[in-house]
Amino acid sequence: MAELNEIIHQPIRLRTMAALVTLGANEEVDFSYLRKLLTVTDGNLGAHLHKLEEAGYIKINKSFVDRKPHTYISATPAGRKVFAEHVAALEVILKGK
Amino acid sequence: MAELNEIIHQPIRLRTMAALVTLGANEEVDFSYLRKLLTVTDGNLGAHLHKLEEAGYIKINKSFVDRKPHTYISATPAGRKVFAEHVAALEVILKGK
Repeated sequence: MAELNEIIHQPIRLRTMAALVTLGANEEVDFSYLRKLLTVTDGNLGAHLHKLEEAGYIKINKSFVDRKPHTYISATPAGRKVFAEHVAALEVILKGK
Repeated sequence: MAELNEIIHQPIRLRTMAALVTLGANEEVDFSYLRKLLTVTDGNLGAHLHKLEEAGYIKINKSFVDRKPHTYISATPAGRKVFAEHVAALEVILKGK
């Protein structure tokens, strides 16, 4: 039976990974872009990103731009791989297998 | 933003609905068939079916065959509709929208 990845299946994390894997390999998005895209609070998004980072699926890069802190997020190769596997499992499941 | 239905998104319930909506409009499956398909325990499947029934997405039909109780499950028209909407939302989300 097709296996769903429980870390990725949660809606906010699924949307986050989907947004990240559609970027190029060296591209990243900033935190506020994701927060607006997903219509979530800072705290909620932060908690989900932490979970994805712990699993090794995303990389979080904090830096300063004009002395203001910015957080950039990108999918790791491992994250892209598990996301692709998750989508493949969903496709099988949605056909009722 | 595409909305995911939280009742249907849970993996066991997603698989259950997917299995049911691929049946014809007047077809139903029995409990033990679903339990084997999903590799879950009686109690676990029962709880998820209860939640889907409460939401009006499935119909549970209990009857006796040769004096043995049998439980038959089918998707309701409302269940088919929300499942189709959920799949459409997933398709949008998986493209990173």
